[in-house]
Amino acid sequence: MRGLMIGRFQPFHLGHLELAKIILRECDELIICITSLQFNYMEKDPFTAGERIQMIHESLKEEHFDLSKCYVLAIENQFNIATWASYLRSSLPKFDRVYSGNDYVRMLLSDSGLEVIKPNFLNREKYNATSIRKLISENSDWKQLVPKAVADNIIKFNGIQRIQTILTSDTKPTEY
Amino acid sequence: MRGLMIGRFQPFHLGHLELAKIILRECDELIICITSLQFNYMEKDPFTAGERIQMIHESLKEEHFDLSKCYVLAIENQFNIATWASYLRSSLPKFDRVYSGNDYVRMLLSDSGLEVIKPNFLNREKYNATSIRKLISENSDWKQLVPKAVADNIIKFNGIQRIQTILTSDTKPTEY
Amino acid sequence: MRGLMIGRFQPFHLGHLELAKIILRECDELIICITSLQFNYMEKDPFTAGERIQMIHESLKEEHFDLSKCYVLAIENQFNIATWASYLRSSLPKFDRVYSGNDYVRMLLSDSGLEVIKPNFLNREKYNATSIRKLISENSDWKQLVPKAVADNIIKFNGIQRIQTILTSDTKPTEY
Amino acid sequence: MRGLMIGRFQPFHLGHLELAKIILRECDELIICITSLQFNYMEKDPFTAGERIQMIHESLKEEHFDLSKCYVLAIENQFNIATWASYLRSSLPKFDRVYSGNDYVRMLLSDSGLEVIKPNFLNREKYNATSIRKLISENSDWKQLVPKAVADNIIKFNGIQRIQTILTSDTKPTEY
Amino acid sequence: MRGLMIGRFQPFHLGHLELAKIILRECDELIICITSLQFNYMEKDPFTAGERIQMIHESLKEEHFDLSKCYVLAIENQFNIATWASYLRSSLPKFDRVYSGNDYVRMLLSDSGLEVIKPNFLNREKYNATSIRKLISENSDWKQLVPKAVADNIIKFNGIQRIQTILTSDTKPTEY
Amino acid sequence: MRGLMIGRFQPFHLGHLELAKIILRECDELIICITSLQFNYMEKDPFTAGERIQMIHESLKEEHFDLSKCYVLAIENQFNIATWASYLRSSLPKFDRVYSGNDYVRMLLSDSGLEVIKPNFLNREKYNATSIRKLISENSDWKQLVPKAVADNIIKFNGIQRIQTILTSDTKPTEY
Repeated sequence: MRGLMIGRFQPFHLGHLELAKIILRECDELIICITSLQFNYMEKDPFTAGERIQMIHESLKEEHFDLSKCYVLAIENQFNIATWASYLRSSLPKFDRVYSGNDYVRMLLSDSGLEVIKPNFLNREKYNATSIRKLISENSDWKQLVPKAVADNIIKFNGIQRIQTILTSDTKPTEY
Repeated sequence: MRGLMIGRFQPFHLGHLELAKIILRECDELIICITSLQFNYMEKDPFTAGERIQMIHESLKEEHFDLSKCYVLAIENQFNIATWASYLRSSLPKFDRVYSGNDYVRMLLSDSGLEVIKPNFLNREKYNATSIRKLISENSDWKQLVPKAVADNIIKFNGIQRIQTILTSDTKPTEY
Repeated sequence: MRGLMIGRFQPFHLGHLELAKIILRECDELIICITSLQFNYMEKDPFTAGERIQMIHESLKEEHFDLSKCYVLAIENQFNIATWASYLRSSLPKFDRVYSGNDYVRMLLSDSGLEVIKPNFLNREKYNATSIRKLISENSDWKQLVPKAVADNIIKFNGIQRIQTILTSDTKPTEY
Repeated sequence: MRGLMIGRFQPFHLGHLELAKIILRECDELIICITSLQFNYMEKDPFTAGERIQMIHESLKEEHFDLSKCYVLAIENQFNIATWASYLRSSLPKFDRVYSGNDYVRMLLSDSGLEVIKPNFLNREKYNATSIRKLISENSDWKQLVPKAVADNIIKFNGIQRIQTILTSDTKPTEY
Repeated sequence: MRGLMIGRFQPFHLGHLELAKIILRECDELIICITSLQFNYMEKDPFTAGERIQMIHESLKEEHFDLSKCYVLAIENQFNIATWASYLRSSLPKFDRVYSGNDYVRMLLSDSGLEVIKPNFLNREKYNATSIRKLISENSDWKQLVPKAVADNIIKFNGIQRIQTILTSDTKPTEY
Repeated sequence: MRGLMIGRFQPFHLGHLELAKIILRECDELIICITSLQFNYMEKDPFTAGERIQMIHESLKEEHFDLSKCYVLAIENQFNIATWASYLRSSLPKFDRVYSGNDYVRMLLSDSGLEVIKPNFLNREKYNATSIRKLISENSDWKQLVPKAVADNIIKFNGIQRIQTILTSDTKPTEY
């Protein structure tokens, strides 16, 4: 049985990592599906799909996951949300169970015959990508909230400066 | 002569129905053009194009419209708005007159040689799709504002729960 | 129960009309779904979606169909064919049965729980849109193969000249 | 050496004109690249690409620029911003230097080996497209902020009324 | 009055140049509209939009055209051809007359109130982009068929090798 | 150092597998990039991206690759080929070396500073996806040309029947 977790992972944090561990305990294989493949260098989506794939892959590796049981993949967002479940199935290896605390995701998958599991997340106040991006932009105390491989790569990608530049630019990035 | 009315119809309400009646009195045939075909399961666009078509068709039927004089059709939105009038013409049967109280629509059609009529709407405060969606989310007193076929279908489509789920979800639907 | 027939209908011919009659005898309602909404003025797709909708609607009307039981709708083609069944469902009123002699369509809908019926077509050699377009381009004996409303509209739309111009143009239309 | 300046130019104003003059003093040729080609008739993008090209071309002409050294071109916006520099290069004549005061643009071009120059703008409070559009909508004192050719064309295009209609319409243009 | 000529210009040749001269004799200004902006590095479209713009601009310059009367612009192709005339108008400065020997273009513009002129081309057998690309790929006697600025730039862009590589590659470029 | 191999992998065969082994001997990590993510159920692209990812992942696993050193990822095709190298970089983890025997790919990456290596392929006549798809459609002797995991999955996905249905359908799939 394959278990699926879905997110933008901007960035992948310790709450996500914890969920990945839970899924691999309960399923044979894990799929981590990164959404919004086509977006990057924007306020809510600072990192490219390639960067996010690399950060997650290396996080799993440093935590000694058996990578032969893991898929880390990225997909584009769909405008026609009613076709989203179908798009997921065409883009990913066959999956049987979805882990999501989001009622909206649950609704979209409700007709698909998939099992949707509500996970017990780590402290959601603390492990929250929006607030982590804010901490990164202020360069204050964010490294403890993400896997070491994520922190190292954000530094390597000039991620702090990138997020600051996006936030402070007087022209909105989408205008270019 | 064919008369055209245009809207998202999220949902189709008694004000819209009244306008449809007026058009069929003044023209030979009626086109109801549903916009934003590609959007659904979002705050301002909860219902799919298929659901909206069905709700409008059944509303006309229960009101004893002569359906052989009516077209209920859906089209996608266009980014390049300057081509919108042309896109309308390529997607719909030939029409001669547009009923719209919207100055913006009037401007977009102004070079096209079409007659644009400003209709006398029913009470716009009351018959307003935005406030009807709000009432649906609170499940309070919305059924009297829409045709019976619309109310019945919204119940059948789990529309109340759908709108509530969209509104309360902590993740924005467009992120998936 | 709603029965669905699908095609490009370039143009709608007597074979299609016959199938529409069969469906309305066997189902409560009929959906005629026109594909390739976005294509027109091309060799295989000379007519716009709007023109095709109008021609089919008027054909049903002149044959005394009860239009309150009929939906004539157009949808765009999808690149990601694996999501096609899902796109159909989001774009059309709910349907239960699909009439198609095409094994490919049958395969695409096979996982959807829909009943797919193989219709007995009229003489397929004779009633075939490709050969009808060829006859139109030569202006020889095509009118007897389509409903009168289709023939009248093709004349009205300058369809013969349009098809001839597309075929003889030295530049391929897709280059513009 | 070709110098590049980039913007939406909604509308092109005297600050932009000044920068164009500076570039032609420092480089052999000038490229003015208009972004958001596909957007128009919207609050932040009232004018079409064609209108903007014409207004800028005529502004340069009335200021006696040597047009044989100038390119005025429009490009679409890209969703995948990480490919933007590459898209610029495929859409424009080869350029060597970019004039931009925007740190965000500088970041996007940083890996491309291009020289990015921070220009000394004219008074940015005064020469600012957002506030000029606001002044146009109020029809107060905007003509002195733009080249004469821009002012004349905005009048000719019914631009004042267009901006007012966009701003006051109760339906958002993107819904059509 | 502005006169328009339209083409892919892969590459711009002496027949095109001759037409540009004719238009500038008969009209006040000239627009050269390059189509298929988004295609390049393909068999029928080897050069990018930027390269084509540059080659045409420099050809006009070396032939002493008054560039203040010329627009050299690129646009994308449209799938929905019925909206093409409208897309042209939104993307280009206002034009009144189109020079085209193509009946297909004439048909698409026929409802637009534009004057369409059939030009007397130079020898079309000889001045033909398809056969010129073939000659380039064989590196035989093509330079005499294009303006000097085009020939020089094709050499500078490694155009001969590019076309050869595209033609001989065992994988079709569109697969990447 | 990461080495990259690119293809549609319809299907992944023993020649591809051999190349993957070579890359992992010469580089620290391997990226297998599957193109044409958005296409499936077509003659040249019968399998979905998800199916292809799964088949390749399982092939590497059964051949005892260290999956912690491997990325198996899918990307969409781009119309604007001149931006392809940039799109690759935004979609994949950072790579330094590309293995490709295709001169066209080499040309597209030539300006990017990447090392492009021409691999010694296994017998290309024999290990060729086009001829393998033909053999699958005839169900003759194809299993020996692909990894066991690929053969098993093609059976499980009803791939033989799928390819036969695509080939024999009288309507081209792209028309739906």
